[in-house]
Amino acid sequence: MLDGLFKPRSVAIIGASNNPLSIGHIVIQNLVDHNFQGPIYPINPKSKYIKSFKTYAAVSEVPDEVDLVNISIKNTLVPTVLEDCGKAGVKYAIVHTAGFKEVGEEGLKLEKHIVEIAHKYGMRIYGPNSQGIQNSDPAVSVYANFTFVPMRPGNISIVAQSGGVGETLKLHLHRIGMGMRMYASFGNEADVSMNEIIDYYGQDDDTKVIMVHIETLKDPAGFLEVASRVTKKKPILVVKTGRTKEGVKAVASHTGSLIEQDTLADAIFEKSGVLRFYSQQDMIEAAIAFSTQPVPQSENIVIVTNTGGPAIIAVDECISKGLKLAQLSPETGKALGELLFSEAIVSNPVDVIATAGAKEYGGTVEALLKDPNIDSLILNFVTPPFVDCEAVACKLAEIGAAAQKPIICIILTIEERWGEVIRLVRQSGIPVYDFAESASKALAAMIKYGQIQKRPTPELKELPCDKKKAEGIISRYSGQDRFLPQADVFELLNAYGLPAVKTVRVETKDELKKEAQKLNYPLVLKIDAEEVVHKSDAGGVVLNLKDETDLLAAFDNMANTFKKYKPAFVVQEQLVEGKEIIMGAKAGEGISPMIMFGLGGVFVETLKDVQFRLAPLSQAEANDMIQSIKGYPILQGARGEKPADTDLTAEMLMRLSQLASDFPEIDEMDLNPVFVFEKGNGARVVDARLKVRNLG
Amino acid sequence: MLDGLFKPRSVAIIGASNNPLSIGHIVIQNLVDHNFQGPIYPINPKSKYIKSFKTYAAVSEVPDEVDLVNISIKNTLVPTVLEDCGKAGVKYAIVHTAGFKEVGEEGLKLEKHIVEIAHKYGMRIYGPNSQGIQNSDPAVSVYANFTFVPMRPGNISIVAQSGGVGETLKLHLHRIGMGMRMYASFGNEADVSMNEIIDYYGQDDDTKVIMVHIETLKDPAGFLEVASRVTKKKPILVVKTGRTKEGVKAVASHTGSLIEQDTLADAIFEKSGVLRFYSQQDMIEAAIAFSTQPVPQSENIVIVTNTGGPAIIAVDECISKGLKLAQLSPETGKALGELLFSEAIVSNPVDVIATAGAKEYGGTVEALLKDPNIDSLILNFVTPPFVDCEAVACKLAEIGAAAQKPIICIILTIEERWGEVIRLVRQSGIPVYDFAESASKALAAMIKYGQIQKRPTPELKELPCDKKKAEGIISRYSGQDRFLPQADVFELLNAYGLPAVKTVRVETKDELKKEAQKLNYPLVLKIDAEEVVHKSDAGGVVLNLKDETDLLAAFDNMANTFKKYKPAFVVQEQLVEGKEIIMGAKAGEGISPMIMFGLGGVFVETLKDVQFRLAPLSQAEANDMIQSIKGYPILQGARGEKPADTDLTAEMLMRLSQLASDFPEIDEMDLNPVFVFEKGNGARVVDARLKVRNLG
Repeated sequence: MLDGLFKPRSVAIIGASNNPLSIGHIVIQNLVDHNFQGPIYPINPKSKYIKSFKTYAAVSEVPDEVDLVNISIKNTLVPTVLEDCGKAGVKYAIVHTAGFKEVGEEGLKLEKHIVEIAHKYGMRIYGPNSQGIQNSDPAVSVYANFTFVPMRPGNISIVAQSGGVGETLKLHLHRIGMGMRMYASFGNEADVSMNEIIDYYGQDDDTKVIMVHIETLKDPAGFLEVASRVTKKKPILVVKTGRTKEGVKAVASHTGSLIEQDTLADAIFEKSGVLRFYSQQDMIEAAIAFSTQPVPQSENIVIVTNTGGPAIIAVDECISKGLKLAQLSPETGKALGELLFSEAIVSNPVDVIATAGAKEYGGTVEALLKDPNIDSLILNFVTPPFVDCEAVACKLAEIGAAAQKPIICIILTIEERWGEVIRLVRQSGIPVYDFAESASKALAAMIKYGQIQKRPTPELKELPCDKKKAEGIISRYSGQDRFLPQADVFELLNAYGLPAVKTVRVETKDELKKEAQKLNYPLVLKIDAEEVVHKSDAGGVVLNLKDETDLLAAFDNMANTFKKYKPAFVVQEQLVEGKEIIMGAKAGEGISPMIMFGLGGVFVETLKDVQFRLAPLSQAEANDMIQSIKGYPILQGARGEKPADTDLTAEMLMRLSQLASDFPEIDEMDLNPVFVFEKGNGARVVDARLKVRNLG
Repeated sequence: MLDGLFKPRSVAIIGASNNPLSIGHIVIQNLVDHNFQGPIYPINPKSKYIKSFKTYAAVSEVPDEVDLVNISIKNTLVPTVLEDCGKAGVKYAIVHTAGFKEVGEEGLKLEKHIVEIAHKYGMRIYGPNSQGIQNSDPAVSVYANFTFVPMRPGNISIVAQSGGVGETLKLHLHRIGMGMRMYASFGNEADVSMNEIIDYYGQDDDTKVIMVHIETLKDPAGFLEVASRVTKKKPILVVKTGRTKEGVKAVASHTGSLIEQDTLADAIFEKSGVLRFYSQQDMIEAAIAFSTQPVPQSENIVIVTNTGGPAIIAVDECISKGLKLAQLSPETGKALGELLFSEAIVSNPVDVIATAGAKEYGGTVEALLKDPNIDSLILNFVTPPFVDCEAVACKLAEIGAAAQKPIICIILTIEERWGEVIRLVRQSGIPVYDFAESASKALAAMIKYGQIQKRPTPELKELPCDKKKAEGIISRYSGQDRFLPQADVFELLNAYGLPAVKTVRVETKDELKKEAQKLNYPLVLKIDAEEVVHKSDAGGVVLNLKDETDLLAAFDNMANTFKKYKPAFVVQEQLVEGKEIIMGAKAGEGISPMIMFGLGGVFVETLKDVQFRLAPLSQAEANDMIQSIKGYPILQGARGEKPADTDLTAEMLMRLSQLASDFPEIDEMDLNPVFVFEKGNGARVVDARLKVRNLG
């Protein structure tokens, strides 16, 4: 619990100064301006008074318990004052000072050192290189931060890795007169972590929605755990930056190379029910809707307007985000038909036309709120000079204050003439947007959250498999970093119910001749040598061998090409008429493995039509993976082809997930291709690579 | 030329009234408030004075020439007053009145009638069911519109099909204190058209950028012609609504106009160099940048910031929009190294850090402006309480006023404290945004326009072909609506240099036996009956016939299946190792044909990986089509396969475009599949359908 940080009973400012441009001064000013509900103790050995507050030479000299200190002195002086703070029983130290991890090796050492000092005394470090925290709760009203956006109470809490982004988020709430609950920009995250802060916001009853800015997830598994818990109670909205080509881990297999840092983040957001946004504005505008409106019960919306064009924009935006225009019930249609002018359009969008006044516009909204087909409303209102717009706003405000369904409003007007219209509507809690697009996107985000909340808790069933046998195989390679021979890979997969195609491994031509007699042509011949990773590209795979002559010729050729490796060979029956898919797994660092699914070949490599999810996979998650690829209709049998067994595919993904989860030694698996046949005809892994890692 | 509309020397208001809520009153008020530079004549037979202006009973009684009238009387009274206006020599009549085409058949008749009356007198109708026009040129200053957003001079001109959207666009310029040049929302477009207005804006030297809102293109070919001309001189920015099926439906019910393909609009925008936006805000924010900044010379940008996070957001947004982070020249690096604090980051983005003042921030921008590697700048500036922010703003304003390269700014601050910072920077012409994303998107739009301006004029070369022969074939079907037999289709394609696979048409089994001897197995057998359109799905195509036995068996089977049609058959050599593509053409209504290209099969049908362009195709356009499909790497030989001859593919697209353009009788062509081989090995059309239409 971070109460000492966010609800300090007293604050000391180390580095307090009478220089109004210093951080030490600005923090005191912010605390005073926002009427902090506890004592403020400036610490400065050289001054007697700072801003009329008596100054102390050290925290240990303060005649009171100090919960929180703000430190903005030189980096090298921080350890000494922390010792003093620790001895004085300080609970949290916000370190504004820079010059730690972000400047390199020396700084990192210093950073570790200050955390050690703090922990010695049971004290926690916030930062270093951090802005600070704010809590608008009137019982506390702490602005222990050197930034400039004024604070007022609200129910949106913010945590931002970048102070500049955090400031942007606060700014735009401030600009429309909205308050916020708590704020934190945590700098280097040496001790108090983003995950702890999110958890704290999650437990705060007066936080209704959480906005998060992330650059890198320091502890992905921790985030997954916390976020999964919090999103059950309230929405977490995220902007994650660093989307473009950074942190790509160069690994040999497809699975590995497709996983970037950002993909992992996406999989975490998906699994934990976090809403990701790709612009700060979109996130803020959604947060504003969440802040005052109930979560929609379904995707069925209605749009009301008094001018056509913007409503069409709202339709485009809503439909492209997956929302549905509700069909008005006959009762609603009748009521509106009686209420509205004859030129009005009584369908969805409802066009009440520009001459509609409070009676018509308000009556329409009242009728629509009662319609069981409708679960949320978008109202577009341009202020016509020939209508009593304030009366319309009063009516909407009255309705909005009592409504049980979410209402989102777009008001097209000029502040200087109809500012009151906007204010009236906003005061009722109805969020007001400038653009039809923004309103639609905000509502779409709320609807998505409603769907997330209704997701059933994933049922994780343990599928029967021969774990003992798998352990035997894996243990043979204990402590090694290497690819396994294909025979072992296939045996391992078989143990987990992932059957491979009938395959024989041979070393000589005679052996090949003998074994091939037991198989049905056409056959496939493959090289089996650890050195040859991309077998196809290297000429290590020959397909369509239709008789023994073909087979032996291919053997001679391949044996010659790869003779330096003294290779073995694998001969398989060639499968036809199945759908080619690819599935894979990649171990995580401190987090469960990532499971990958896609159609084979160009669909994965060229079109990047791939889905990733974090293990463990529930049935619902496996199905969602399969249905989320763009090529899903191909699996279903596009163009009159036979459909592949997608239930079996889902089961195989779950089995793969189980295998990867059971054995953290498995670094990566790549089942490529897998052929899936029509229901009842099974599936076969045709080729697979598996790399184990030394867990040390 | 629409001078009489946009630069009227005098305006009469028909339906003028002393009721301040009436349109006739509001228009007079708007003209007066904006200091219209000509006389205003209220027309009302019942009043003597309206707003102190002497009132006339009819336009014909006005003792002066009247250029423009605004009409807001009952729809049925419009014809009579138009007769009077016509006789009085009025040039343009803005008809605000509704109750025309949009209400159905009767209204449409009335609408046609008023246009006839007008044309009889050489008068033009603007509307009906329209807002009006505005021109902020101080020499005219006409606000002949009943809307409420105040007007001030600027260089952005707006034309909006929806008045509500037009109002939104004006609103947001007004909100940040920007002016605009001309405005038009044209209602039913019975006479004066959107295309004419765009053309007029194009010729107006004081219009620097044009914003357009479109619901339906009434005259697509006209738009293409006008827009192509105008975009050479100045950017046209478009938001087109009705992107989704539901949106189109909403458009249809709103304006009463026909459903239109969004794809056609996209092809028109692409060909004419129009910039399409998917949100009003994105368009406005781009317009603001175009309004004051020069067009960037390349995609090489630099980002400067005094706080890290927002700069990373700018990087993400810019990179994902195809911009490039310029490498600073060594001279710049050296200069910044000397200028900036040691904690600053001298790369791209340049982080001058929060403590940078006017000297550091300004000096950095000056150095970067001189760097030949850099063609535009994004500046992110948060106002740190410990810096003289006004001084930074003054310096930036000074630099901005003189800069020859575009500068775009994000300022993170609160108006009430540092409003002057924003004002100073804006006054210099540097656009100021609230979000890093907005600034980046606006710059990306400018860079895209720069690239469009540099597109070479499409070279349309006439490829040699046997047009005579083609005429002969087409003429056989003159006046019919039907599919052509495959043999004729192939002959036609051959005449235009689109060679089909070796194909023989047979009617009997004996014929088949004889002809097949001249071909190389494997063969393909296909049904040839006009009634069977989707041959594959109906079982009318059998592949992989490896010898005569197979062939004859397939024949017997097919002959039996389709016996009711008394079909003919086509036998072809089966092609292997080529890349399967599909190309097609669809005739337009009053516009050149649309050419389609994609990879065959699921790539088109399931993944919708298809490109459309309007004929005629230049080499560059054909190449762009090919390179724009997501599956382009497949053509280039992904996964070690042989590349297809993309030059030949482009040539074939041009030939198809030429054929479709030469014969408007061709309603649609579908070459599917076409096999394209490695360079030097040609390409073959395997199957093709062609439908002619009766042009009447």
